Amino acid sequence: MSSEPSLSALIEALRRLPGVGIKSAQRMAFHLLQHDRDGALRLAGALSGAVAHVHHCERCHTFSEQALCSICADAQRDATKLAVVETPADQAALERTGSYRGCYFVLMGRLSPIDGVGVRDIGVAELLERAADAAVQEVILALGFSAEGEATAHALAQALRARGKTVTRLARGVPVGSELEYVDLSTIAHAMSDRR
Amino acid sequence: MSSEPSLSALIEALRRLPGVGIKSAQRMAFHLLQHDRDGALRLAGALSGAVAHVHHCERCHTFSEQALCSICADAQRDATKLAVVETPADQAALERTGSYRGCYFVLMGRLSPIDGVGVRDIGVAELLERAADAAVQEVILALGFSAEGEATAHALAQALRARGKTVTRLARGVPVGSELEYVDLSTIAHAMSDRR
Repeated sequence: MSSEPSLSALIEALRRLPGVGIKSAQRMAFHLLQHDRDGALRLAGALSGAVAHVHHCERCHTFSEQALCSICADAQRDATKLAVVETPADQAALERTGSYRGCYFVLMGRLSPIDGVGVRDIGVAELLERAADAAVQEVILALGFSAEGEATAHALAQALRARGKTVTRLARGVPVGSELEYVDLSTIAHAMSDRR
Repeated sequence: MSSEPSLSALIEALRRLPGVGIKSAQRMAFHLLQHDRDGALRLAGALSGAVAHVHHCERCHTFSEQALCSICADAQRDATKLAVVETPADQAALERTGSYRGCYFVLMGRLSPIDGVGVRDIGVAELLERAADAAVQEVILALGFSAEGEATAHALAQALRARGKTVTRLARGVPVGSELEYVDLSTIAHAMSDRR
């Protein structure tokens, strides 16, 4: 797009965002410089601010600006239940349902040997330490049912059961609002065997 | 995703990028904070740097860190030809073909009444001033053949011809490497009437 060094540096930096290729990065740089220099400066400030202030909650590992996140700091939450989720986004989805009032542990990833993500890269040791809390009676593995989510759940369930913890998983079944004929067969088979 | 103010501010700022919705913004923020804080700081620096240093070339209006961009400052370019393009990306595409050695004028947009982009928002007055240079013998409208590109070309051609300038456009025709049966009919009709 240009031989201008500041512009090339901006395009290169934008390309490092997930899902952004060279054309999108050029379009973003062009848009910011031509139409939204204000937004560019705001984004620069937000990036530095987040890097400076956002750390991990000491107990549940999610993003937090305090030592404890707002959920861990809330004495009203049910301390006997610990839901393990992959990301803060998954945690937020579960919170929005309003169906869960227990505590969380956020892995910040899932096992993915292909991408070189092993037991040490996700917070497994911290999870085991957290689950060792005598108040925790049930660990709910609220992981996705992708291949990596399944592998992660399997590894975690083994480690947790070896330490005498009760481990449960989210129910697999037919999504609300869907027609049976369009649901994949393995989901229907699970829904059948887990019928209630 | 979070009640943390720095994180919410980052997600909001990322959402202002073109083509980025709430899910992508969350994913970007998560990726930067979890896996690439270095990249986040680099992007913050690149944004501030580009806003501080990148301005418009005095002659052709493209992005430039100097008063004149490298093409306008190049005395070897053919000053009798002036190609009008919509964006720096279009200019870069034309440069890469190696088929053009003249000068440029970059509109930095195109007329789009629906989006409220009028004659004043793209550099039409500056173009007319630039084209008034006695050295310019031919103005080549290298605009896209979208509805907006056509409308822009029509308006510019009228204004330039009224000032006695020779105005040409890029040839419309069948793209290199394409099968006739898959080319739209209006392109084929243009290619037929412009046959040579």
